[in-house]
Amino acid sequence: MDRRQEILEAAAKSFSLFGYKATTMDQVAKIANVGKGTIYTFFANKEELFNAIVVKMIHEMRAEADSVSVEGAPFEQNAHARLMRMLKFRETHQLYAMLVDEEKELRTPAVIEVLETIEKEIVSYIKTKIEKAVAKGELKPCDSELVAYLLFKAYMALVADWGKTHDAELEEQRIVALLSGTIFKSLLV
Amino acid sequence: MDRRQEILEAAAKSFSLFGYKATTMDQVAKIANVGKGTIYTFFANKEELFNAIVVKMIHEMRAEADSVSVEGAPFEQNAHARLMRMLKFRETHQLYAMLVDEEKELRTPAVIEVLETIEKEIVSYIKTKIEKAVAKGELKPCDSELVAYLLFKAYMALVADWGKTHDAELEEQRIVALLSGTIFKSLLV
Repeated sequence: MDRRQEILEAAAKSFSLFGYKATTMDQVAKIANVGKGTIYTFFANKEELFNAIVVKMIHEMRAEADSVSVEGAPFEQNAHARLMRMLKFRETHQLYAMLVDEEKELRTPAVIEVLETIEKEIVSYIKTKIEKAVAKGELKPCDSELVAYLLFKAYMALVADWGKTHDAELEEQRIVALLSGTIFKSLLV
Repeated sequence: MDRRQEILEAAAKSFSLFGYKATTMDQVAKIANVGKGTIYTFFANKEELFNAIVVKMIHEMRAEADSVSVEGAPFEQNAHARLMRMLKFRETHQLYAMLVDEEKELRTPAVIEVLETIEKEIVSYIKTKIEKAVAKGELKPCDSELVAYLLFKAYMALVADWGKTHDAELEEQRIVALLSGTIFKSLLV
């Protein structure tokens, strides 16, 4: 694994353990077992480091989602496969949700911007998939942008919010059954 | 209007304008145009005042939702009517969402408890309505607790979150069409 990659993983670990605000470049250097100077050859500051983690996460996610989709398979099958795969990143999504919460408190403009960009990218990804399926006649015409937004928000609530007000996290099977049985089902022709 | 009612309305206005933390009993007294001592005859502190506002809101909401429901009418019709009526309280719900956000920052145990109670009460109200309709054979058997949670979270996202990342708030007609066309529809027999 290259140095840059090691630093990114150490930073993700630190954000996850201590939050955004409490993470320092010193801490990341210690966790990555490199000198602080090494970090600065790759990233000018904590915000850039955070940005890089998020961009990497989005790329990995998209690649994973695409890798389980079968060209020509029914929308329902691909949507189900993508959802199952996304649930493998559940911890990352909980970290993301934690940063969104922390962000509301800190109001760092650079981080707000990144989080808005993520939301827009994911919603636009889902929207594209819905519109393709509508064009193929697999789904009913719908308010694709709003349906995509609803799916994103529903997913985040089930994966990250439920556990905060209940004794245990939701089982993956229950999340999949809910979304398949309600929002996905309602879209099918 | 009685004094207690005037104080509650003044406090709601102050929470809405300045947030929970920045609201003081002095401010509430000024807005209500009463002496600070008068407030203390009704409420021991800011948390009690907040609690009373929330309890009142929940009662009003429930009474309103019940008032537009027609005994014996199809689930879809009543669900639609309740949703339309709830949207009249949109500003209150935005205030609620703001307090949830602020709460994440402040971590006042009393307020956390109240907010969790609200969520539980609303979800349990929706759950009861779903289960009644399932018993009557109007809706398919479903994971009623999770469907209720999904509806609550979807509603809050559409009413309170959308506007934060978009140029304008969602129109009511678009919210109603989305929820009717997806989650509600999927439940019908």
